[in-house]
Amino acid sequence: MDPRIRQHAATIVNHSVDLQPGENVVISTPSVAEDLAVALHEVVGDIGGVPVYLADSDRADRAYLRAAGADGIETPEHPALYENVDVLIRVRGGQNVTETSDVTPETMAANERAKKPISDIALSKRWCLTQFPCASFAQLAGMSTEAYEDFVWDAIDKDWDAQREHQQRMVDILDPASEIRIKSGDTTDITMSIDGMHTQNDYAEYNLPGGEVFTAPVPDSVEGEVLFDMPLYHQGREVENAHLVFEDGVVVEHSAETNENVLTSVLETDEGARRLGELGIGMNRDIDRFTYNMLFDEKMGDTVHMAVGNAYGDTVGPNRERNESAAHVDMIVDMSEESVIEVDGDVVQRNGRFVFEDEFES
Amino acid sequence: MDPRIRQHAATIVNHSVDLQPGENVVISTPSVAEDLAVALHEVVGDIGGVPVYLADSDRADRAYLRAAGADGIETPEHPALYENVDVLIRVRGGQNVTETSDVTPETMAANERAKKPISDIALSKRWCLTQFPCASFAQLAGMSTEAYEDFVWDAIDKDWDAQREHQQRMVDILDPASEIRIKSGDTTDITMSIDGMHTQNDYAEYNLPGGEVFTAPVPDSVEGEVLFDMPLYHQGREVENAHLVFEDGVVVEHSAETNENVLTSVLETDEGARRLGELGIGMNRDIDRFTYNMLFDEKMGDTVHMAVGNAYGDTVGPNRERNESAAHVDMIVDMSEESVIEVDGDVVQRNGRFVFEDEFES
Repeated sequence: MDPRIRQHAATIVNHSVDLQPGENVVISTPSVAEDLAVALHEVVGDIGGVPVYLADSDRADRAYLRAAGADGIETPEHPALYENVDVLIRVRGGQNVTETSDVTPETMAANERAKKPISDIALSKRWCLTQFPCASFAQLAGMSTEAYEDFVWDAIDKDWDAQREHQQRMVDILDPASEIRIKSGDTTDITMSIDGMHTQNDYAEYNLPGGEVFTAPVPDSVEGEVLFDMPLYHQGREVENAHLVFEDGVVVEHSAETNENVLTSVLETDEGARRLGELGIGMNRDIDRFTYNMLFDEKMGDTVHMAVGNAYGDTVGPNRERNESAAHVDMIVDMSEESVIEVDGDVVQRNGRFVFEDEFES
Repeated sequence: MDPRIRQHAATIVNHSVDLQPGENVVISTPSVAEDLAVALHEVVGDIGGVPVYLADSDRADRAYLRAAGADGIETPEHPALYENVDVLIRVRGGQNVTETSDVTPETMAANERAKKPISDIALSKRWCLTQFPCASFAQLAGMSTEAYEDFVWDAIDKDWDAQREHQQRMVDILDPASEIRIKSGDTTDITMSIDGMHTQNDYAEYNLPGGEVFTAPVPDSVEGEVLFDMPLYHQGREVENAHLVFEDGVVVEHSAETNENVLTSVLETDEGARRLGELGIGMNRDIDRFTYNMLFDEKMGDTVHMAVGNAYGDTVGPNRERNESAAHVDMIVDMSEESVIEVDGDVVQRNGRFVFEDEFES
C-alpha cells in the first residue's frame, strides 16, 4: 500500500475527526478507495474505536434511482444507524464521475429530499468528507493518475495549524462584520448581510483538504447578480457560467451556458434552494489548479464561492433565521482579476490578495 | 454486465427473500461483487423497496481485528440499523479467501461474540446468503474463473419448486422422528435425538443455492464420535479431518490433522460452541463437486453435515432447549461409501441413496 494512504487515514482520524476510544464511526467509501478503508479500519482499531463500513457506489445509486424514479424514492434506513454513531467519515471517489449522468435532474433532486433526514443527522455529528485520488477524478481534472495522486496527497499532508492561523485573520474581519459586497468584472456585483452570523475557520476538520472561511448570509438580505465563471460539476454534468439574480434574497432569474436544466432542478428542490446558504472564501494557495472537484476548487486562493440551499448550523447566529433546504450546491467566482471584496465599505481583498498580505494593493 | 448477474439478482429478490413494495433491505457485498450489487439495486428499485448498501471487506476486517486485538473488539452499531430493516441480503466473495489467515483464532472468536447481537437480529429477519463467483473462490476450488462462474450460476438458476418437492420426502421422514444414527466407515458412529424438533426444507430462501434439509439435535442427546472427512475452510485456514467425541451432548475430545488450533478456538467461543446446533443432509445433486465453500459443499448429495454452536430458531420445537452460541461452524461427512443414516432404527439412506430413490439398496 502507498504509505501516503496510511498517512491520509491518520490525518482523517487523528486531526479531522479526533476519534476517541470507544466511539462509533461510520466509514463510507467507494470500492476504488478500499485501500484507504483498510487503513482507516487499522487506525480506528488502534485507537479503540468501533467501525461500521458503508459502501458508496455511484453505479448502485444510478441503478436504484433509475428503477425507482422520482416518485418512488423513499428515505432509506440509515437514520437509525446514524443516530447511534459519533463520527462519520465519507470518502469520495468512483470509477466514472459521469455515472449518474443519465438519471434525470428531477430524480436526483427527489433523492436529495429523501436523504435530508439522514444528512441532517449526519451534519449534527463530527464528520469528515475527503477524496481518494482515483483515475476517474484524475481524468476529470485532465491529469495523469500519478500526478493527481501527488496533487491530492500534497494538499492533504499540510501544516494545518499554520493554515488555521492564516485564515483566522479573515475570520476576525468577517465575524463582527455586517455588510459584504463582492464585485468581479462587470458580471458580478452582489451584496448581503452577515450581521449576527458566525464565520467558521475550516482547517481540515469537516473537509480534508480544508482551507476556507465560511459563513451564512442573512437569507433575505442578498441583492444583485453573480456570474459563477468557474465551471460547476454537479450530478455528473458540467454547468458552465451559471448566472443568478437575487432580489430580497431569492433567485428571481437564472441561466447557464450548458446544462441549465441541472441548475433549474437544483433551484426547484425546495423553497430554501432558491436562497443562499453559504458564503465561502478560498484561502488554500497550495491548491494551485482547478480540478472540477468542489472539495478542492472552493478552497483555492483567489476564489469565493456561494452555495444555494442549506446553511450549516454552526454558521447561523442566535436569533437569526437559518436557510433550510435538501440542496447545498456550491458555485465559484474567480477573484484573481478586476475583483474586490468589501466588508462594511472597506476593501479587504483585491484581485485575490487580502488586506493582511504584503501583495495587497490598497 | 453478464446477463446471469441480473438473473442472480432477480432470483435473490423475487424467490429467496420475496421483497415487497416499501420494505427496507440491507445489501452487503464485497467490492468484487459490485456488479451484483448494482443489479440488486435495480431489482429493488423496480419493486419499490428501499436499499441500504453495506461494504463487506475482508481486508478492512483484518486491519481492524489485528489493530483492536481480542480484548479490544466491541459490538459495532449495526443493531440500530438492522432493527428497522425487513430483509438482509449478504453476498460472499473477496479478492483472497485467506485474507484473515493472520488474525489469531482467539481474535476471530472474540469478533464472533461481539457480533452476536447483530446476527441474532439478522437471523430474526428474512435473509439470504449467496455467493458471487469471483476469482479467489475459483482458485480455492481449483477451477478457472469462467468454469467457476458456470458452476455457481448453474447451481443458482434451478427449478426450486422441483427441488423442494424432492426434499420434502426427507422432511416427512425426519420431522416426526426421534432417534438418528449416522455411521460412516469405522470412523463415524453418532446418535442423537431430534424428538420435538422441526426439520426445515431449504429450497433457496435463506441460502442461495439451497438444497438441504436440516434440523436441531436435542442438545444433551448427542453421543458418539464423528470424523469430518471433507475439509473445512474456516477463517482463511483449512482444517482437515476434524474429529469430535461427544458425551451427554458435549464435545469431550477433539483433534484435527491441520490447524487444530482453529477448531479449538471455535469450541472455546462459548459454552454452546461445544454442543451441536444443527444436523443437515445435503440433497442437491446439481452441486457435483467439492469447492471448499460451505454454502455449496453442505448442499451436495451424498453428504451430511453437523454444526457446532448456534441452533436456528425455526428448527427448535416448543418446550425444547435451543443451543445458543456466537459460533455456528458446519463440518461435513462423506456418506457416499460404507455409510448409513438410520431413523428410529430404519435405514433411510445407504451410501448416499435415499430410501425413496430407485437406486436405494435395501
